[in-house]
Order: sequence, then C-alpha cells, then structure tokens
Amino acid sequence: MSPLDPDRLLPLEPSARTIARELYARVVTAPIISPHGHVPAASLLDDEPFGDPTSLLITKDHYVTRLLHANGVDLRALGADADPRGAWRLLAEHWHRFSGTASAYWLRHELATLFGVEDDLDPSNADSIYDTVAARLSEPGFRPRALFRRFGIEVLATTDDPLDDLADHRALREDDSFTGRVLPTFRPDRYIDPDAATFEGAIPRLLAATGRPATFAGYLDALEARRAHFVAEGAVSLDVGVTDPTTVDLEPQEAERLFARILAGPCSAADRLAFRGHMLLQLARMSVDDGLVMTLHAGVHRNHSTATHTAFGPDTGHDIPVPTGFTRALRPLLERFGLERDLHLVVFTVDETAYSRELAPLAGFYPSVYIGAPWWFLDAPDAMQRWRSAITETAGFYRTSGFIDDTRAFLSIPARHDTARRVDSSFLARLVTEGRIPLRVAERIADDLVSTIPNAAFKL
Amino acid sequence: MSPLDPDRLLPLEPSARTIARELYARVVTAPIISPHGHVPAASLLDDEPFGDPTSLLITKDHYVTRLLHANGVDLRALGADADPRGAWRLLAEHWHRFSGTASAYWLRHELATLFGVEDDLDPSNADSIYDTVAARLSEPGFRPRALFRRFGIEVLATTDDPLDDLADHRALREDDSFTGRVLPTFRPDRYIDPDAATFEGAIPRLLAATGRPATFAGYLDALEARRAHFVAEGAVSLDVGVTDPTTVDLEPQEAERLFARILAGPCSAADRLAFRGHMLLQLARMSVDDGLVMTLHAGVHRNHSTATHTAFGPDTGHDIPVPTGFTRALRPLLERFGLERDLHLVVFTVDETAYSRELAPLAGFYPSVYIGAPWWFLDAPDAMQRWRSAITETAGFYRTSGFIDDTRAFLSIPARHDTARRVDSSFLARLVTEGRIPLRVAERIADDLVSTIPNAAFKL
Amino acid sequence: MSPLDPDRLLPLEPSARTIARELYARVVTAPIISPHGHVPAASLLDDEPFGDPTSLLITKDHYVTRLLHANGVDLRALGADADPRGAWRLLAEHWHRFSGTASAYWLRHELATLFGVEDDLDPSNADSIYDTVAARLSEPGFRPRALFRRFGIEVLATTDDPLDDLADHRALREDDSFTGRVLPTFRPDRYIDPDAATFEGAIPRLLAATGRPATFAGYLDALEARRAHFVAEGAVSLDVGVTDPTTVDLEPQEAERLFARILAGPCSAADRLAFRGHMLLQLARMSVDDGLVMTLHAGVHRNHSTATHTAFGPDTGHDIPVPTGFTRALRPLLERFGLERDLHLVVFTVDETAYSRELAPLAGFYPSVYIGAPWWFLDAPDAMQRWRSAITETAGFYRTSGFIDDTRAFLSIPARHDTARRVDSSFLARLVTEGRIPLRVAERIADDLVSTIPNAAFKL
Repeated sequence: MSPLDPDRLLPLEPSARTIARELYARVVTAPIISPHGHVPAASLLDDEPFGDPTSLLITKDHYVTRLLHANGVDLRALGADADPRGAWRLLAEHWHRFSGTASAYWLRHELATLFGVEDDLDPSNADSIYDTVAARLSEPGFRPRALFRRFGIEVLATTDDPLDDLADHRALREDDSFTGRVLPTFRPDRYIDPDAATFEGAIPRLLAATGRPATFAGYLDALEARRAHFVAEGAVSLDVGVTDPTTVDLEPQEAERLFARILAGPCSAADRLAFRGHMLLQLARMSVDDGLVMTLHAGVHRNHSTATHTAFGPDTGHDIPVPTGFTRALRPLLERFGLERDLHLVVFTVDETAYSRELAPLAGFYPSVYIGAPWWFLDAPDAMQRWRSAITETAGFYRTSGFIDDTRAFLSIPARHDTARRVDSSFLARLVTEGRIPLRVAERIADDLVSTIPNAAFKL
Repeated sequence: MSPLDPDRLLPLEPSARTIARELYARVVTAPIISPHGHVPAASLLDDEPFGDPTSLLITKDHYVTRLLHANGVDLRALGADADPRGAWRLLAEHWHRFSGTASAYWLRHELATLFGVEDDLDPSNADSIYDTVAARLSEPGFRPRALFRRFGIEVLATTDDPLDDLADHRALREDDSFTGRVLPTFRPDRYIDPDAATFEGAIPRLLAATGRPATFAGYLDALEARRAHFVAEGAVSLDVGVTDPTTVDLEPQEAERLFARILAGPCSAADRLAFRGHMLLQLARMSVDDGLVMTLHAGVHRNHSTATHTAFGPDTGHDIPVPTGFTRALRPLLERFGLERDLHLVVFTVDETAYSRELAPLAGFYPSVYIGAPWWFLDAPDAMQRWRSAITETAGFYRTSGFIDDTRAFLSIPARHDTARRVDSSFLARLVTEGRIPLRVAERIADDLVSTIPNAAFKL
Repeated sequence: MSPLDPDRLLPLEPSARTIARELYARVVTAPIISPHGHVPAASLLDDEPFGDPTSLLITKDHYVTRLLHANGVDLRALGADADPRGAWRLLAEHWHRFSGTASAYWLRHELATLFGVEDDLDPSNADSIYDTVAARLSEPGFRPRALFRRFGIEVLATTDDPLDDLADHRALREDDSFTGRVLPTFRPDRYIDPDAATFEGAIPRLLAATGRPATFAGYLDALEARRAHFVAEGAVSLDVGVTDPTTVDLEPQEAERLFARILAGPCSAADRLAFRGHMLLQLARMSVDDGLVMTLHAGVHRNHSTATHTAFGPDTGHDIPVPTGFTRALRPLLERFGLERDLHLVVFTVDETAYSRELAPLAGFYPSVYIGAPWWFLDAPDAMQRWRSAITETAGFYRTSGFIDDTRAFLSIPARHDTARRVDSSFLARLVTEGRIPLRVAERIADDLVSTIPNAAFKL
C-alpha cells in the first residue's frame, strides 16, 4: 500500500465506490469551516515557525501521549523537558500499537501530504523521518499562516477565557496581510461550574474585572458584558464542557441564595449541581438575547488520575467518559427556551447510546437543538459511520452541526476534515446504492454538509 | 434512480444480493399480519374516502410534522386548520431535509406504488403531485376497505380504550361485505398509570362503568371484566405504554392501602411508581388467566414540551426516549409468572442498549418473553439491521414478535412491512453467504418471519 | 452449502476476502492459548472418555439448554436424569430456532470437524447423528488428552476455589505422559462478595482452613496465603465475577469494623457493597505484590429466576446482564494502583455501551487496564466485530486481552478460537482495504493477536 490510498475509507463495492468517489470529488477541495477548536489565535498572529517534530506532533497531542503511556511509556519521556528525538523514537517503537486508531490515521495523512513521507514509521526509519519533518518545519511554507492558506481554512474558531481581552483576535483582524477569519469562542466553564478544576476564585475575578457587585444579578450582568465583548470581537458561539448536563430552573430568590452559598463555598454536591444546572439555563437565556450559538460538550469525567493531574496538569489523556442522558437533563432548559428559533443548542456527546435514543429525537423536534458531530474518542471513521447510522433515520442530515475538528493539533485539521468528507461520501453513497435517496439529492447533501449546514448551525 | 429501485435495501455484493432476492421473492406478496397499530376500526366500518393529501400524509403523521417543526415550520401551518396545499408545499420545500429518514423512505414508497408518482418531491412539482394524489384519493379503489384488500392485510389490530364498547369492531365483523380480520387491543394506560396524562378521573369512570366498588379488588375485577369483553370481541392482546417498566410485587393489604391513596390523590412519586409497577404485574397475572398477549412499550418520556402539548395535544412529535432497563425492572413480574408458558410478554424498547444486554438474554431463557420488533424511531432500515445483529446471536429468530407496524398512517402499512421483509432477507442472506446458516434454513426462517412467528407470538 | 464453508465469516468483497484469507492462513494452525475457562483439571488428569452426546453437548452447556427452555422445553428433559437420546431429539426438533446463534455456529463446527457430520441436524437425522457422535466418543482419539493435543492447546487455565488444594493440577504437571500446560485460576467470589449465592459460611471456612484469626488482617492474610499457593502451583491470574464493579477505598479501622459486621451478618446493602468494593481494591493490591493478573467479569445478575435456581442450581441459563459502568466504579482502585505497571487488570463486560465510552478510554491511558475480549453473550461473530469497531479507534489492538473462550464445553474450544481468528482477520482485512493500515502491519497484528498479545496480558 502506498501510504495514502486515494480511495481510503470509501466503500469497496464497485457501484458504491463509484458514487462515493463522485460525491467526495465535489467536496475534497471545499474550504474548511472549523467553528470549534483549540488552536490559539496567537500562533497565527505571531506566525512563528512550529518547533521540532516532537513538540508539534507528540508532546501537545494527548491522543498520542495517552496511548504511549498506556503502552508503558513514562509521560516524562514525552514532555517539554524530554529529548525530542528520543521521544520520536519511542513513538516509532510503539507505532504498530497505534494501528487502527484515529491518531495513526491522521498522522499518516500528515506525514504523507505535508512532509512527503512515503514509508510507514518504524524504528529503522525514525531518525530519517524526524530529520525530514524537522527540515520542512523550518521552511517558510510551514509557518502557521502559510499552512492556514494552504489548508483552505475559511473560518477557524478558537476557545477563550471570558476574561480574555481578545487582543490577539483584534490584531489579527486588523492585520491586512492576513485575510483568514479567526473567531473567538466564549468558554465560561470555570465561572459557572463549581466542579471545574479551576473554579476556585474565578467568580470573584470575573466580578472584579467587570466591576460588578457580588450578587447573582451582578454576576449574570458580568457574564453578559463579557459575552457582549466576545460578540463585538466576532464570536458566534459559546462552549460549555460539563460532566453532567443536567439543567435546573430556579426562582430568582432561590438562585440568589444559592449564589451566595456558592461564593461562600465549599458547597454540597446538590448545590454545585443546582448552580451549574441553573447556569446552563441562564447561558441559554443569554443566547436567546445575544444570538450566540451554545455548544455543549457533556459527559466526560475530567482528570481521572489525580497523580497524573498533579504531576502533568489537565488535558494529559485521562479524561474518561461516563453515561450521559439528555432527555431529562435538558428538559428544564428546553421547557424555557427549546422552541426559540434563535437559540441554537449544539449537543456533543461521547456516549454513543444517546445518539438514537435521545439526541436524534430531540433534534428531530426542537428547532433549537442540533446534533453535534462525533466528538473526541468518536471522531474516527467507524465511529462516524455509527453516528450517521444512528441519527439519520430519525433526524436526517440537516439537524446536525457539520463537522467540528475540536483540535489543538493544527496540522491535523485537514486530515480530520478529509476523514469526515470521506465518511460522509461513503455513507451517502450507501444510501444511494440501497435505493434510499436519489443521487441528485445526495449530491446536494454532500455539498451542504461542508457549507450550508455548518454555516447555519453556527450562524456564520 | 427510478423512484423505487426493485433491489432497494438488498445487499450490494452480488452473491448476497442473489440470495436476498430469492428470500425476498418468497415473502414479498405474503399477507400482512399487523397485530399492533393505531388505525381506527371506524375508518374501515365507515369506509369513507380519505381526505386531502395533507390531512392524510402530513397532519396526522407526527413523524412528518415533528421534523418539519424541527426545521422551523410552525405546527399551526400543518394542522387541521391550515391550508392543505400550503402545508404540502412546505413539505416539498423541506423534502431534502427528510432524506435518509424512515418517513421519507415510506412516503416515496407510497407515492410511487399507490399514486404512480415518479418524480422526487420538490417545490417545482409540489402542486402537480398534490393534484395527482388528491385525484386518486377520490377514486373508489382508494377507500379504506379497497386498500385493506389491495394491501393483502390478513389481520389488523387496533388500539382501544378499555371502556370502548367495541361496537365498531362488532359491526365490522358482522358486515358480510368485509372479510378482513380486525381485532381490538386493550390499552389500559390511563387506568393503571398515575403518571399518564389522562389518568385523572379514569379509575372512577372505570368503576362507575362496570359497577364495581372502589376497592382494589373491585378495581381488578373491573379490569378483568373489560378484558373479558375484549376477548369476547376478538382481542388477542393488551398493550401497555409506560415510561418506566419497573414491576412491583405487593402483598394484598399493601396493594389495597396503596390503591386507596392513589384514588384519594395526589400521591408521591414512590406511590405512583409502586402502583403502576404493581398493576403491570397484575395485568400479567390476568394474562395468565385469560390468555391475552401482553405487549409492553416502555421508555418514552411523553409530551416533553409542555407548551406544545398545551397547544396541540399529545402525539405531536415530542415524545422522547430515556434510558430503559429490563433485567431488574421486570424481575418481580418474571419471578411470579416468567415460567408460565401461556404468558406471552412482548417487550418493545427505544433504547437500543437493551437489545443485546437484556432483551435477548431474557427472551433466550424465559418462555414467556418475546423481543418486540424495532419500535418507533428504530423502525428503519439501519436500525432494523442493528436490532437483528444485536439479538440474533443470543436468541435466534424465533423469540421475536415478528414485524409490528404500530402505525396511525394506514397508507404506510405496506411500505413498512415491505421494509422489514427486505431487511430480514438481507440479514438472512448475509448469514448464508458468511457460512453461518444453510440456505434451506434461511428460506424456512424467511417464511416463518411473516407467518408462524407473529402468529405464535400473538396467538393468532 | 457444505456444512463448513472454508471462507465462513470472511468478508464477501473479493479484495477484502483475499487479504482476510491470507491473514487467516497465518494463524489458523497457531497454538491455542486459553488463559480463562471452566474445564476441570480432573478431566485431563483422569482422561476418562466423555459420556454420551447429550451429556457432553447439551446437558452441561447452558447456552444450549437456555434456548431450548425459552422455546418451551422443560429443563428436566435435558438434565442428567433425562433420556439422552430423547434430549438429542428435542434439540434436533428445535434446531432451526438456534439458527444465527453462536451456539449453533459452534455446534455445526464441532459436528463437522470432530465427528464428520455433513448434514445439518434435523428430526429426520437426529438418531443417526446421535449414533455417529456416540460411536466416535468411545474412540481413544476422543479422550480429553488426545483432543487437547489435537486441538493444539498450548495453555489452558481452569477456574478454582481458593481452598482447592490443586492436587489435580500438581498431578497433571508431574505426569510425564502429559506435556500440556494447565494452570489454575484463583476465583475468590464467594469469599469476598456478600451477595454471592454461596457466601454464607465461606469466610469462616477460609479462616479455619488457613488457621487465621477472625480479623480483617487475618482474613487478608488468609487470601494472600491461598494466592501464594496458587502462584506456587502455576497460576498466572485471579478472576472475580461481580454484578457491580464499584471499588471502594477504606481506612484500615473502617475496614476492620466493616469486616466484623459482615462476619456477624446479615448486613445492609450499603455494607455489602462497601465490603465487596473494598475487597476488589484489596485483591488489586495483592496483585501488585504477587503479580497475579486480575480479571474482572462484571455486570451479570446471577440466578434471575429463583424457581429455576432452586430446582436446577446455578449456571442454568438465567444469568442476565445489567447496565454496567467502569469510569466511576473503578476509579478508587485506579487512583491507588492504576499507574502500577505490574498490575494487569483485564476488564470484561456484557454491556456493549462501555466499550467506546469507558473501557477503550481507560485502557488507552492506564497501563494497568486491558480490555477483555467479548464475553458470554457477546462471544459471537457480529458482536466481536462490534467490539473491535468500538474499541480499536481509541485503544488499538495491543490494549486487549487476546481471545478468551471462557468455556465449560471442552469440545467447543477450537470452534471458538477459530471464530475469533476469522473475525479478526476480517476486521484487519477491512482496515487494510480501507487504506487505514498497511498490510505488513496487519500481518504482524494478526500474528500478535494469537501469541504476543494474550501472552503479555496474562504474563504467560
């Protein structure tokens, strides 16, 4: 096999493959819309060269470090203080253990398309591939802005703290030499979720920064002010990540008293749940007012290994999903705002059981609910096929978010979007060959999936 | 693509397709057995022409109205007071958004096979297709009885209130000009579930109608009397729809006291759960006595949107599934009656996780438990394949209910049964080509799935 | 179809089939590693002929008796006191009802490969097949040791009570005429789980047998002593089967008090949960010390039908799975020992929802966690494909246990391992033809799946 089969991920059966190829050809070069991710705006503003291959492709990618760790590699050997070439050799040594994972698929794509690496990584070629990648990374064409253009990115959203002044975004927008669209995203977790790892002191900081009084009304006002700032700087969405998506409707006085207890801290689990749940509802209310799309990434137990969190910090590979329900959890929010057409609530899950049971039925009724693309562990070919299969028969294609790459790994963006386009072309081709939709309609859907659909869901 | 590919839903691979075609050919014209559904007996008794295309194909079909609503259409524009042609145009405008759904698949089937519509619906042909359908609907061959015959329906079960006198059923049976078999089904939800939307006042009405005293014994006696009436009028089954299928065994005195509290109302959640759970067990006990098959449709949160329920009533598209377990929930019932061979308990779920985890293992041991066909949101080609895949390796084909259309949409009955026959033929063909069952056995199973199996499960 | 298609379970599409055949050919004759199962060592020590076909293939196989029971056969007609030929005829009469099940697949394999039976079982040939099988079973080549060699079994683990003296294992090891490797497995359920059916009196028996005092320390010491005995006799693993895998960390004094309450009995559900949960953690701690691999089979409600349990005992077909979570349940254990590289915790589940949501993410980070092969109801071709699809994209192939047959049915061992090899070859062939892994890597993985991977997971 050449490193990249041009027909990879397309169906094998000849008639389906022919149709899938045709659909894929329509979208292969379509601009990339990336309305949710974790690339920092500063990297595009500064346009500094990326570092060495290891810091770019291993150290910062917890998909990669986690599986090396599971296979016995010490995280210290992969961190910022480690020998980059040594870490790269460790990856090469364990590379067959990544076979079949999304990470391996993306990295093969990147090595082949960006670095011209033809051979599959193994211990014998680890050094020469490292040298090839390192050499390329020093070229001007491999700086962030050049790659942004080369990747055909039309929109790229970052993820930002509500107190961020967004100066990088503004500077980037005012820089005539950069024409890309880079949008901030309001991510208030630490200010609304008492169970967030960095909740401690966050609300007082928010109140101080916005000059609001320590009342519930002052607090809501502070959040609204910061949202307004984000809207002014181009944001189209806010994103919330919570373990439990339960929403809670409270009377104002009840909310005020709860807020006082939360500020005084520490609080009972019931209070923490009620506060977070009520704030999810309040954030949705604010979205009805200011139009920000609300994306919800729910159901992950963050920092499962305390020892690893203490030694290496968050986002180090031990965030583990838990069972997650939405039908009952979102009801209080939907009772209040579910029929509002200006509300867009995009729900992501890492619990596949919710697809056919809850998300597709909810998005198949409520005009405000959109089904988020397969997220995190599920952002991989087989999982994407399962997602389409589970949701489409109830909700069709138009109640979804479009593809979201949600990545910190800038170089993987084209690989991830290409994967989604191949999977969707294959899925559509199957429906056509099974006589379930006309080819003409499949063509329209293929086009819409990379344009109209994400643009509508994210109000772009 | 012609509107209906004759090989639609059959496998693409040539050897599997050949076998699937052969199996499908055996059953394509087999009579339709429809032992559970929602077509009113009155429609066949009166044999009045159906109304306009919209009232027939849109207004009454909450699969269709829900997805239009999700895509931004006001339910008022689709209701009985709306302009029928305007509503039809709305459907045409949004038709591509139904692609891939079961609704679209069925409607294409109906338009092609019943109305000779060759083109796929779109705004340009909406009016002409409307006119074609409207013209046909006024023909004598499109009256309910003519279609009943044309569809090859052998048995059709309705769903009825326990206090229904079943006069329509009797009249229909006594009408020599109609030879079809139309059976009533006893649906006691509102009389046994304090959480049912129409529970209020139902038990007093039942007691009054049957002249029974307001004691638990009187109440059980009233239910038994009404069941006896249904049996006398030809019923073979009762159907229960509850959100939570928990069953509860109670001592008689305990049940008596609980009944008194329930009658006095309002009651705690624990009392409501215990009462409903105990009544599920009592209904099973009655089935051991009178032989009625008990079908259980569990796990749907009804009327999720209060505003919509208030404005438009029940069955308007916002019944949403919740996680549902059966192993522990059904145990009290099965401890009492699970080994009774005369009890047939057919369990339906919209939580796919229960298929391999609970339903197949339960039906693979208890002679009383049958696995219900994929229900509601799961009554679609991919979901049906997942169902067969999940249950067959544990329970085989013979511990299932046979296909159930469960529909209010009379015209969709042939499309739905045809879908099941195609999917089952494809599934069986795969097992044959994978060397897992002999073709001869697959032929027998294909035949049994549309005859012996539903006849046995429903004691027809 | 001949009874056994040489390409059974391989993909139909020609290019995938070619690759799958090649991969399967590499492993078809590889030795069988069976590190977890229920064949008694005595059967190999004594090397007595197996009994009649029914006692060998029906009576002791609750996969078979359960489905016959579900289809209306009385368990008495299949038990040790029943007429063997009559029971065999019952199986033949119901044989088509097993179509599509794993049991039917295995039995067809056994009848064809071991007994030369070419025809599919049915009532007309039931007697002649019975006679054929019975005649073969009396031949010397059908004694346990001869079959052990013929099956190519390299390692076979049994499952044993901690108080077993393992004399059979020792005698077998010292018998020069038998060169197979047969290992004991420490199965302490009844000594650690107050909800186990045979918990009553077990701890006192353990303390008496080991001469330890009735303190928590004495109890732990007793378990450690018995583990040491197992290690000395060649054991590489312990196995625990619990309904709820919740683990609990307790302070020593708290554990001591809890132990006293448990010994005094009867205890509250909370106490029983805490004790079992703490003992799971203690067993893991012991594994860090003595190196025994800890396998966890969780999530089955044992003896669901009390009447059947009373009349026929345990393992009679009514153990039914329940929803099972691991992310939260295993956390206390993993917080203590999850990063220990000498700990191997192999987790099996019959709740498929945990695959992508919990097990793959856990095993993709913790070096101690291995994903157990599809277990029990899920040990079947479609379920195995779902398992690979659900876990591989997150955790790859190398964080799994390798195939485990977990069987009491000695004759089914080759059929089960062959099934796994065919399914894995098919899965790998699909990844190759979809351009996701190079063929060269797939070949390595195919080899490793039947050698390196189980050997590493089970420290063989």
